[in-house]
Amino acid sequence: MVDFSKCVSEMRTSEIRDLMSVAIRPDIITFAGGMPNNDLFPVKEIDEIYNGLDDSVKKEGFQYGPTPGYPPLIESLREYLRSKNLPVDTNDILITAGSLQAINIIAKLFINPGDKVITENPCFIGGTSAFKSYQADITGVPLDADGIIMEELKRAMENEAKGAKILYLSPYFHNPAGIIYSRQRKEQLLAYLKGKEIILIEDDPYGELYFNPEDEALTVPMKTIQPEPVPICYTGSFSKILGPGMRLGWLLASPEIINKAQLAKQSMDACSSTFTQVLADQFLRQGKMKPYVERLRKIYARRMKIMNDSLLKNMPPEAKWVVPKGGFYIWITLPENIDAKEILKESMARGAIFVIGKTFDPLGKKNNTLRLAFSHTPENEIERGVKIIAEALKARL
Amino acid sequence: MVDFSKCVSEMRTSEIRDLMSVAIRPDIITFAGGMPNNDLFPVKEIDEIYNGLDDSVKKEGFQYGPTPGYPPLIESLREYLRSKNLPVDTNDILITAGSLQAINIIAKLFINPGDKVITENPCFIGGTSAFKSYQADITGVPLDADGIIMEELKRAMENEAKGAKILYLSPYFHNPAGIIYSRQRKEQLLAYLKGKEIILIEDDPYGELYFNPEDEALTVPMKTIQPEPVPICYTGSFSKILGPGMRLGWLLASPEIINKAQLAKQSMDACSSTFTQVLADQFLRQGKMKPYVERLRKIYARRMKIMNDSLLKNMPPEAKWVVPKGGFYIWITLPENIDAKEILKESMARGAIFVIGKTFDPLGKKNNTLRLAFSHTPENEIERGVKIIAEALKARL
Repeated sequence: MVDFSKCVSEMRTSEIRDLMSVAIRPDIITFAGGMPNNDLFPVKEIDEIYNGLDDSVKKEGFQYGPTPGYPPLIESLREYLRSKNLPVDTNDILITAGSLQAINIIAKLFINPGDKVITENPCFIGGTSAFKSYQADITGVPLDADGIIMEELKRAMENEAKGAKILYLSPYFHNPAGIIYSRQRKEQLLAYLKGKEIILIEDDPYGELYFNPEDEALTVPMKTIQPEPVPICYTGSFSKILGPGMRLGWLLASPEIINKAQLAKQSMDACSSTFTQVLADQFLRQGKMKPYVERLRKIYARRMKIMNDSLLKNMPPEAKWVVPKGGFYIWITLPENIDAKEILKESMARGAIFVIGKTFDPLGKKNNTLRLAFSHTPENEIERGVKIIAEALKARL
Repeated sequence: MVDFSKCVSEMRTSEIRDLMSVAIRPDIITFAGGMPNNDLFPVKEIDEIYNGLDDSVKKEGFQYGPTPGYPPLIESLREYLRSKNLPVDTNDILITAGSLQAINIIAKLFINPGDKVITENPCFIGGTSAFKSYQADITGVPLDADGIIMEELKRAMENEAKGAKILYLSPYFHNPAGIIYSRQRKEQLLAYLKGKEIILIEDDPYGELYFNPEDEALTVPMKTIQPEPVPICYTGSFSKILGPGMRLGWLLASPEIINKAQLAKQSMDACSSTFTQVLADQFLRQGKMKPYVERLRKIYARRMKIMNDSLLKNMPPEAKWVVPKGGFYIWITLPENIDAKEILKESMARGAIFVIGKTFDPLGKKNNTLRLAFSHTPENEIERGVKIIAEALKARL
């Protein structure tokens, strides 16, 4: 039994709900939602796929599928992951409801109430809420532009997070921090973790969304190193390369873990939607994913550039950020004494919203930060929205 | 952390997997799968719906939805449940991944390791595996043709199941027992539970599938009684009235419970598939569900009759069963000394399979029972399959 009243996530939920209710006002410019814009979804491609399906395949889509996933999708996903040099022959795949369900299942398998988990700080809110729902004791370790800060991680693992069962990282176009781990940081991390009894969850929902082809090399998962020096649960998602409404993600992990994860999933929802798995399989199998993602990269790169240019032009020098090389987010850090909630209030009154930093702090405290998502905002609104936030900030500085 | 090696469900999973691998042999007649036959799904209806959707609605299907569910679906589902006199104005709805996820969430909210749960014996395997995954201590209470046996329930609640947090029942065309609760039994049950601190989960995935219109009155949920004398979590599913591959079900419960259940779901998978929720909404909204279910009732009634006639003609007198008034299953009880596993072995060698009784015993023991599903088997194979099982049984008696 979980006492949700003690979860920070309850407060966050209501806060996010408030934000969302504001976001539907037509006069408000929103950088709040961490999702693609509706106009970016591959509707035409899925129309073609759906109307080209044999009736016998459609019928499979209405039926229960095996708990590990719809077999053709496992096959096409395996080839997709193989093309990224992921170890699909020595590891097994479980299809999940987004990468969130994969994280939740790993937490269910390994966390007893009070067990320690290390996350980044800031951290994807779904990750912290999954760990908290199993009553994990979370330590958040800060990031710099190259990834988790090694000294801070070491200090935490030798002190308050000693004996942690899970280290949860989202190294590629981090939500909300927008950064990507450097090659060197990944190597340092793996070298440090080697031989330690901790499970590394490498969560990778945004890796495909690099803006410049030369940055593709940065997105190589740690899981590609074979044999792995650390047991890695690699999680990914169709949410950003097809659509979150499909509720499809995956877990790539050792057969032992996948076997137990299957049992957990079986008791949760029996299987993921076969209907959307059929569509996702064809999306990969017919080669529609690649051109679609190429289109997305260009669009998001352009939106990021507009946002970054506007920030440079309008923001006071106290606001700092790392220019993202991919993904959905710019993460603004303000002086320690600034409360993002105040900025949000001011900004909302002027007509633009975002998500405040403490939403992403596992302890719900640190709040001199703002997450601006450019994924969801039409290009022609970005500059005006940034100006509003900059003015709100200047008014409160 | 759940030690799945101690779960009965692990054994069951592998047993069911074995059965399924046999079931795909073309020479085998299977009564094993508790699902509709692929040929029964409303493919034409969903084709019409999909191709009639506005692009803007399709795009919503690709997007995240609110955790409680896609608002238009909640609205159309509310009207559907209202038409059954369910208390939709004083209770809230949560859309889940099948009714299984609703059961899992209730277990997550209320069960600490070692807490007691009462189920029927036999019981839906998804229910027991959900409770076991939270390390519940389950007591199974036997059924007769009219429902749970009141004396046995009282005895359990005063003894080994004293202080149980949850009573899980599936009163309408029970899986696997095939029975439906009598009106009197439901009244006795509610009178007995009144004032006791226990949550009743009333799981109702099969209620629409009555065979004779005069039996519709039997399917009236206990949850329709207002004000309820007992806190009831009413769960249902689109799996049997649209297709399990949609992974859609619902929980109707008090606003307090739904509020906590939403938080749990948020940490599990954020929301159910918006894509399939859009389709399910239109299926209800366009009035396609009603004629489809009427068609199903006739088909399943015919299959049940063929199976029942074959059983009457072929089974030895030692085999007993209650003729179902709806649903998917005939549940055969054999003399106590018979091991269903032996019958299955013999029957499989002769060319027909089913699920053995202990799969549905929460303690995985009682095994002088067989579940024959008629939902999945073509009409022209039913008699031959029943004959094979009858012969296998006679050979082992």
